[in-house]
Amino acid sequence: MDLDLIRRLAVPNETKILLAVVDGLGGLPHPETGRSELEAAQTTHLDRLASESACGLTMPVGYGITPGSGPGHLALFGYDPMRYLVGRGVLEALGIDFDLQPQDVAARGNFCTLDAKGRIIDRRAGRPATEQNVALCEKLRQIELPGVQLFVEPVREHRFVLVLRPSGSDKLSDQITETDPQRVGAVPLAAKPLAKEAKKTADLVNSFVERARAHLNGAGPANGLTLRGFAKQPSMPAFPQAFGLRAAAVAVYPMYRGLAKLVGMTVLQTGSTYDDEIETLRQRWDEFDFFFVHYKAADSAGEDGDFERKTAALDAFDQAVPKLQELGADVLMIAGDHSTPSVVAGHSWHPVPFLLHSRWTVRADDADSFNERACLRGSLGIFPASEALPLAMAHAGRFTKYGA
Amino acid sequence: MDLDLIRRLAVPNETKILLAVVDGLGGLPHPETGRSELEAAQTTHLDRLASESACGLTMPVGYGITPGSGPGHLALFGYDPMRYLVGRGVLEALGIDFDLQPQDVAARGNFCTLDAKGRIIDRRAGRPATEQNVALCEKLRQIELPGVQLFVEPVREHRFVLVLRPSGSDKLSDQITETDPQRVGAVPLAAKPLAKEAKKTADLVNSFVERARAHLNGAGPANGLTLRGFAKQPSMPAFPQAFGLRAAAVAVYPMYRGLAKLVGMTVLQTGSTYDDEIETLRQRWDEFDFFFVHYKAADSAGEDGDFERKTAALDAFDQAVPKLQELGADVLMIAGDHSTPSVVAGHSWHPVPFLLHSRWTVRADDADSFNERACLRGSLGIFPASEALPLAMAHAGRFTKYGA
Repeated sequence: MDLDLIRRLAVPNETKILLAVVDGLGGLPHPETGRSELEAAQTTHLDRLASESACGLTMPVGYGITPGSGPGHLALFGYDPMRYLVGRGVLEALGIDFDLQPQDVAARGNFCTLDAKGRIIDRRAGRPATEQNVALCEKLRQIELPGVQLFVEPVREHRFVLVLRPSGSDKLSDQITETDPQRVGAVPLAAKPLAKEAKKTADLVNSFVERARAHLNGAGPANGLTLRGFAKQPSMPAFPQAFGLRAAAVAVYPMYRGLAKLVGMTVLQTGSTYDDEIETLRQRWDEFDFFFVHYKAADSAGEDGDFERKTAALDAFDQAVPKLQELGADVLMIAGDHSTPSVVAGHSWHPVPFLLHSRWTVRADDADSFNERACLRGSLGIFPASEALPLAMAHAGRFTKYGA
Repeated sequence: MDLDLIRRLAVPNETKILLAVVDGLGGLPHPETGRSELEAAQTTHLDRLASESACGLTMPVGYGITPGSGPGHLALFGYDPMRYLVGRGVLEALGIDFDLQPQDVAARGNFCTLDAKGRIIDRRAGRPATEQNVALCEKLRQIELPGVQLFVEPVREHRFVLVLRPSGSDKLSDQITETDPQRVGAVPLAAKPLAKEAKKTADLVNSFVERARAHLNGAGPANGLTLRGFAKQPSMPAFPQAFGLRAAAVAVYPMYRGLAKLVGMTVLQTGSTYDDEIETLRQRWDEFDFFFVHYKAADSAGEDGDFERKTAALDAFDQAVPKLQELGADVLMIAGDHSTPSVVAGHSWHPVPFLLHSRWTVRADDADSFNERACLRGSLGIFPASEALPLAMAHAGRFTKYGA
């Protein structure tokens, strides 16, 4: 739904909305049993909740489109993921809790190994240990360039983040090409401006790369680098203003905190387990109208192609459901940002099971358990993930009538 | 899905996609038995395939919209049928295998009978035999006009195709009004330009009609003509480039070959039966990534309102399913361009049964047979026909992730 329309329809209320995201929730049948991870898991609490809820399946972006984490979450936050795209550099910076500013340009960096003629012979520099990565980033931090502040932040193995922040009022642009030729045997490319106003940024990046070669020389296999996914934060309406909700986010992993921060949610300090996250929700319950809480383990297991571990992660999530319910939200949604089927060992395009539980205004349907097959029988059908929050607003009594 | 996005997401792969279109596939219940043609037919092979496939129903154009053959097929080829419309004149030319060029303007012509005052007294000139039609077209071919080459091609009964092709670099326009007043007792209308650049074309058409009156005089009841559906080929992105697929089309009827050619598919020579078509697929299997194969008999029987014959046509199609499967496509789709219910004796707006079979990444659903009712229980739901090909691209491993 258009955010301008949402702003027009939103009315104040005392109600609370809880969006519990199970990362990579959707799955596919195990080839031997024909049952998906959710069907194989012990989901007693989810099944009971489903039988009392409006169920359906969310389409994260579109038919056949496999979303990254950015579009998957933005859609659940009510943003059209086709319209608002978060670039790789920004996501990578968010993923290490870097405090990105609106004027920053961020890029994903890879250390690589170059031969004597400057050609790439290993695109990942032999996957250095993280301590080596930290040491390499230290070297690069010695580089200074006029008019910008440079940040070089280690991620892990061969990956780092480069952030350029203008020192004065000058603007940087992310409309420049990547330097990664994406293949062995090629020389890293020069960054080229894709727009007139991007020439200065391209020049700065190329200077950085040139100086980096000198600083990395003799630093073992990581004697070069490539940069891609140059990006600034997308400009988008702030969530609290668009929906009229004081919004809080609770997540263990930095990337999800970063995505929430990007749309203007307040990111709450929390511990390292899902129990910690729920405890944080409990403690801060009175301060906000909307809560996003993130559960990661299902996705990680799915990415590893580990059907049993994903099933176990869903078992564990199910155990936490009563605690989520005890918080007493007027609207509780259990949703996923995308499917991560173990048989795919990665994200996929398949729609994601969804339930919306609300005290009063939920229509009865035939979805009496919580999985891909049962949710097809739900009253919500297959619908765009970006419509989940408008639905929640309605169920929370926070939307006025449209038209007289 | 937007074709620009498709182009961005498409990645190379070795996989093959087979789109088997059953023309007029969808039906409606027989008033006595309550069973549709598909429910009455022996669809053993289709039912087995459905139980192993992702099923659903495609919406060709929109709710309540009955599509012609053009939009029905363009949607299955991945084109938004609201955006890309193939005009009647172009379809009529494609339907007789006319080698239409991008600069041509084509129109559908009807021979009619005029009274002494030039008023239409029979809009179809007594439906002349096809030999008479050919003779009438021969007369019209004697007409010459400056700056254009004229083609007058018989279709059947009272119908013919007129094509105007500019001789030089001048452009013709299809933005002119029809000459058919659509009622008896009225005088055929003059063609009027709907845009400034269309004046020359309107003048040419009016000169043609005037000269035709003289040439047809004394030719019996067909002493006049009307023209409608002036159209040029729509300008649209080529299928092979948009999807990154070497694409081949196999169809017995010229119109479907023409539609495939319009989007840039390679049209393969084939015989006159569906077995011939499948044999052509088999012989040319290594040369292409995508195949469209067309089965006509179900539509023809539905158009004739012949429930039994449509059921028999679906029986016959079912018998061919194992041969389609033996080709070994990585993704096999069984789809229809629109519904042609026998009780309607024509096209209808109803969504069309659809299945997508793929070796790995298909979600289990409750659709265990292939008909209108069972496909409602499928994992794909009711979805736009133009999203079928994006889904196939995903299942064929030919789409990269959207967003980081």
